[in-house]
Amino acid sequence: MKRTSFHRRYEAMRRAVDASLASVIGADGPRELLSACRYVLSGGGKRLRAILVLLSCEAVGGRFRQALEAATAVEILHNFTLVHDDIMDRAQTRRGRPTVHIRWDVNMGLLSGDILLGLAYRHLLRTRSSALPTLTDLFTTGVVEVCEGQALDMEFESRADVTVKEYFGMIEKKTGRLIALSTELGARIGGGSRAHIDALRRFGHYLGRAFQIQDDLLDVVADEATFGKAVGGDIIAGKRTFLLLRALERSQGKDRSTLRTLLKEGRRPGPHPKLVRSVTAIYHRYGVIEEAGKLVARNTRHALECLNALPSRKATEMLRWLSLLLVNRAA
Amino acid sequence: MKRTSFHRRYEAMRRAVDASLASVIGADGPRELLSACRYVLSGGGKRLRAILVLLSCEAVGGRFRQALEAATAVEILHNFTLVHDDIMDRAQTRRGRPTVHIRWDVNMGLLSGDILLGLAYRHLLRTRSSALPTLTDLFTTGVVEVCEGQALDMEFESRADVTVKEYFGMIEKKTGRLIALSTELGARIGGGSRAHIDALRRFGHYLGRAFQIQDDLLDVVADEATFGKAVGGDIIAGKRTFLLLRALERSQGKDRSTLRTLLKEGRRPGPHPKLVRSVTAIYHRYGVIEEAGKLVARNTRHALECLNALPSRKATEMLRWLSLLLVNRAA
Repeated sequence: MKRTSFHRRYEAMRRAVDASLASVIGADGPRELLSACRYVLSGGGKRLRAILVLLSCEAVGGRFRQALEAATAVEILHNFTLVHDDIMDRAQTRRGRPTVHIRWDVNMGLLSGDILLGLAYRHLLRTRSSALPTLTDLFTTGVVEVCEGQALDMEFESRADVTVKEYFGMIEKKTGRLIALSTELGARIGGGSRAHIDALRRFGHYLGRAFQIQDDLLDVVADEATFGKAVGGDIIAGKRTFLLLRALERSQGKDRSTLRTLLKEGRRPGPHPKLVRSVTAIYHRYGVIEEAGKLVARNTRHALECLNALPSRKATEMLRWLSLLLVNRAA
Repeated sequence: MKRTSFHRRYEAMRRAVDASLASVIGADGPRELLSACRYVLSGGGKRLRAILVLLSCEAVGGRFRQALEAATAVEILHNFTLVHDDIMDRAQTRRGRPTVHIRWDVNMGLLSGDILLGLAYRHLLRTRSSALPTLTDLFTTGVVEVCEGQALDMEFESRADVTVKEYFGMIEKKTGRLIALSTELGARIGGGSRAHIDALRRFGHYLGRAFQIQDDLLDVVADEATFGKAVGGDIIAGKRTFLLLRALERSQGKDRSTLRTLLKEGRRPGPHPKLVRSVTAIYHRYGVIEEAGKLVARNTRHALECLNALPSRKATEMLRWLSLLLVNRAA
């Protein structure tokens, strides 16, 4: 029963976020640019980061509407990174639709991303909170670190010697930072105590890490129909994931050379079921899939432990529920 | 004598800005990304926008050091737009050096621009001023409008029916906004009265317009050696400038079709001395060069009139001197 009520509440928040996002782009301005921005922001998705802002605000005793502008800002920021990352990664589709630079062109992708970042700040600045200067500082650190994370990710593509430690540093910035930013912003807007803000920031940190490792794992173990994209995409692309880097550390002989070939060749067009099968087998053989699963579980446990510092409230329970939902997701 | 003293003061301020820009990029982070950012920020230039922030601060009675972080922020913002515009315009060089996307690649241009925007906010937020929330709002409006201006500029490239009025709307956003932002930020940081802030904002507005029309004019009348780029570049590129759009309104017959061909064909590689000569002759024939000169003079006069509302100070005198220097520049 409780789950149904959580789910309903999540949907209500998501609708509020979607409505707020729908109002981001006004009617005045360069037409195509506005269309592209509207296209990006209407792409749907879980709105996970925005919901984390809202729930964190409520978890410390605030009302979620107080944090709606900041939630909108974080979601716009996230979409800005997606639009630019898609250009850099030459991605053709996103959430089942053509990416902006495919539907329009690279210039439009570039420019719509830029203006989205400006609009993200505009919404953040509408937050009524005495903590606004701190919120803006945190947000800015988030912007800078997300860019650094993306730069590291690009750098790794051309390197064959990336370590697992470096990988964690990269995803910390590229993915984790924005999730920890979301929970911290919400906690501050809700007027949380120092201890509560700290707990929610750390919760976001662990959740972000669990989420990203789970993402790497899903590429290999997911059910294709639910996952929405072909399983093994990371393997085919030679992407430096936790699985690949750890397996490289552990493997020897023929297995190792199979993996090193992945690193060298980079992107391969078309499906490669045999390659995916053999690499997956290597991952199993060296226990890295098992290890990844354990890491997801451990980081999730740490995340949930952070929530123990918070007062018992529906929002706190929902953060628990959402965490488990995310790391147990099949897609 | 006075000019020498102004010039010396300008150089001192410029050195302070350059030193501040040199400290923007720390040592920690993705190496290539940091190199690209450092490369951008060390490109020299007049640092006009930063100096306008500093002088406007002093013109209302502040000390320029108070406004140094904001001046740095505006200069970083300006450089962010240059890096991304250069990608969109496929520019090969900037201030005599390869552009970022040529020296590195498009991905690096994209990402270094993005992070520069984050760093611009970081510096702005370091400003110690009770007006900081307003400064951040103004800055954000600047970011959004500069992007809109660039989108309009791109849109115009594919349209043959752009009006002079639309052109003014575009340069207002693409160029003017950042100059008016600079003077307003400085005035607010310096603790200017409402009337002084207003005067400096309007000064920036008129100066920005004079500056841009002068830029269009210089493409046709400049001395090539001083100008640093080939005269007639806008003509060859089919760029919608004030000169072209006004001449289109006025011309008929063969002249008109010559101009319409410019619009249709767009970019042409290589020099075209004959084309440049014949279009320049058309501009003279319909008096648009004369009109542009008058517009520069009129907007400069309006700009200088705004300064009359300010107390008499060295910085105010320097703003006068700088305005005349800019609009009388040969390059």
